[in-house]
Amino acid sequence: MNLRIPGPIPVPEDILATMATPMMNHRGPQFKELLYRVTDGVKQVFDTKNDLYILTSSGTSAMEAAIVNTLSPRDKVLNVSIGSFGDRFGQIAGIYGADITKLDFPWGSTVDIDALRDTLKANPGIGTVMVTHNETSTGVTNDLEAIASVVKGEFDKLLLVDGISSVCSIPLQTDAWGCDVVATASQKGWMLPPGLAFISFSERAWEAHASAKMPKFYLDLAQYRSYYEKGQPPYTPAVSIYYALDLAIAQLQEEGIDALFARHARIAEMTREGIKDLGLSLFPDERYASNTVTAVSIPEGVVASDLLRIVREDHNVVLGGGQGPVDGKIFRIGHMGKTTSDDIRGVLDALAASLPKLGFAPAGAAR
Amino acid sequence: MNLRIPGPIPVPEDILATMATPMMNHRGPQFKELLYRVTDGVKQVFDTKNDLYILTSSGTSAMEAAIVNTLSPRDKVLNVSIGSFGDRFGQIAGIYGADITKLDFPWGSTVDIDALRDTLKANPGIGTVMVTHNETSTGVTNDLEAIASVVKGEFDKLLLVDGISSVCSIPLQTDAWGCDVVATASQKGWMLPPGLAFISFSERAWEAHASAKMPKFYLDLAQYRSYYEKGQPPYTPAVSIYYALDLAIAQLQEEGIDALFARHARIAEMTREGIKDLGLSLFPDERYASNTVTAVSIPEGVVASDLLRIVREDHNVVLGGGQGPVDGKIFRIGHMGKTTSDDIRGVLDALAASLPKLGFAPAGAAR
Repeated sequence: MNLRIPGPIPVPEDILATMATPMMNHRGPQFKELLYRVTDGVKQVFDTKNDLYILTSSGTSAMEAAIVNTLSPRDKVLNVSIGSFGDRFGQIAGIYGADITKLDFPWGSTVDIDALRDTLKANPGIGTVMVTHNETSTGVTNDLEAIASVVKGEFDKLLLVDGISSVCSIPLQTDAWGCDVVATASQKGWMLPPGLAFISFSERAWEAHASAKMPKFYLDLAQYRSYYEKGQPPYTPAVSIYYALDLAIAQLQEEGIDALFARHARIAEMTREGIKDLGLSLFPDERYASNTVTAVSIPEGVVASDLLRIVREDHNVVLGGGQGPVDGKIFRIGHMGKTTSDDIRGVLDALAASLPKLGFAPAGAAR
Repeated sequence: MNLRIPGPIPVPEDILATMATPMMNHRGPQFKELLYRVTDGVKQVFDTKNDLYILTSSGTSAMEAAIVNTLSPRDKVLNVSIGSFGDRFGQIAGIYGADITKLDFPWGSTVDIDALRDTLKANPGIGTVMVTHNETSTGVTNDLEAIASVVKGEFDKLLLVDGISSVCSIPLQTDAWGCDVVATASQKGWMLPPGLAFISFSERAWEAHASAKMPKFYLDLAQYRSYYEKGQPPYTPAVSIYYALDLAIAQLQEEGIDALFARHARIAEMTREGIKDLGLSLFPDERYASNTVTAVSIPEGVVASDLLRIVREDHNVVLGGGQGPVDGKIFRIGHMGKTTSDDIRGVLDALAASLPKLGFAPAGAAR
């Protein structure tokens, strides 16, 4: 199967094989070594000296952890959103009682830096800004460095980043940019199965934690900090995925993180060029197009669910659909992790063969 | 390694092997089939027709889910505790603002049914009772059927059960006993790695959910219910452990759940007899001793950490220590899942060989 959704991504065979390693005591000396080694490795990828904790959960839980560990009900928060996951970030904070100011940009576009600056100027009571680095629902990457330079450099706010589909695929310099909290998950660029989430937490975030009154137990990072000193997670971890993480980090380090980013950029470029060569249109403005997931507009007259079904049934290619307001209007190609040019070629060939059956003549076929 | 802690338990090789299965789309038709099949299987083990959801998290998270999905701040709750995990259950509810009445029994003993009845009689404002079925920290099993007959039969309260180290190891009849919410986790009797938690939720619990005001997002079971109708979990699940769960359930069904309970009882009995034959004492009263974990008192003069280290280093046997007030006073032998008599024989032999080095002459060696 050519699994090309934006996570879970296909996991390399040798990493999958480590998942079959026998259990160990998560409170014993072997696990302590493993925990410290993988945490250091994950920190390198985050490019941070901040604290870094590994949660046994999906990425959404790490987004929730970013919120409940730094905020109290009625805290004024700016929720910058360019799509479904940006909306979710604000929705979680709202459920816990934060006072949300929402700054929305159209789906397919990116954060306008001047609008961000104006909003912060007009709302001096806002203490925290929540933003998505890479919006998985629309295939758009925000310019997080520019966003952070405003949020931190000009206004000195607490900055919470959803880096779920960016960290380990595209550059995110946690410390250099001043990201206080960054959340991500294992089933993306890390080449791992889902089940672990990672969250970095700055000194400034710990200051916020000291007065943060949103209730939390499983996600309370104070527990993770105190157990980490003993070389343990506070609750029984998904041991098998730690084994896989250990090997994945060794492979990342061997490849080099810059080479990994370059590889993601190359594969994304190939995907975008191939899509355009077929006569299809990218959903977002290409300037902001993500290097982890490519969103493609469904051509006039083609039924999205038919297209996804045909490429799956006839070509064994699994693509992602659209969510919410773009349901039926886009499809998405995931290309995080060890995606090869053959994988992408397979997707393009499947599209070229399937689209004519749905009344759309691909450019290549028309020639 | 003879891993004999009370979870993670050793996972059979064929189940471990399934963990290396390639990823699939968790929003596709194959996963839908898998989700429905394993959910039905887990329900059979819970002996319930209630709704049942699978969380990607540790068991603690499922305890938190039991609370936040049924309660509001200031709700009056009875926290019945016989050890560390009973205390944790109440602690979580307290953090979310519940008004806790605590009914504690000494560590090593079990819930006194008359005291429970008297407390409920004296506190008519209590709407919910939280109780641990099997207390992992002390190796004691509560008579949940008797507890439920009082809580439900006599007082008709909402009943939340921590079944983390009981479900799938010892009988728990969710529906027949009237347990509204039961939480458990994969790394116990299920023969699985940690990373999934299971929670059953009754109609009465859904009624409570409708007015429950504790904040929740990742753990909001309303999301799990609405996605379940589509054959999906709301957030990216730990797909690999679903594969393992699928095989584990097939094996459980082949063995038969009554045979599985009988096997756990037999192995536990062998463990207790072997411990007594060595001249050691069980920590709890034997009438309440758990069939999933045996807690043993550390003999006078023996340093617990030395004993655990020697059996580990010299015999490759990994035992659990004591937690909180019984730290250094007990050790624990886990015997959930596919524990064999050879596994237990290995533990007993390791203890027989190690104890004399620490100044304790085992009964067998003394003869």
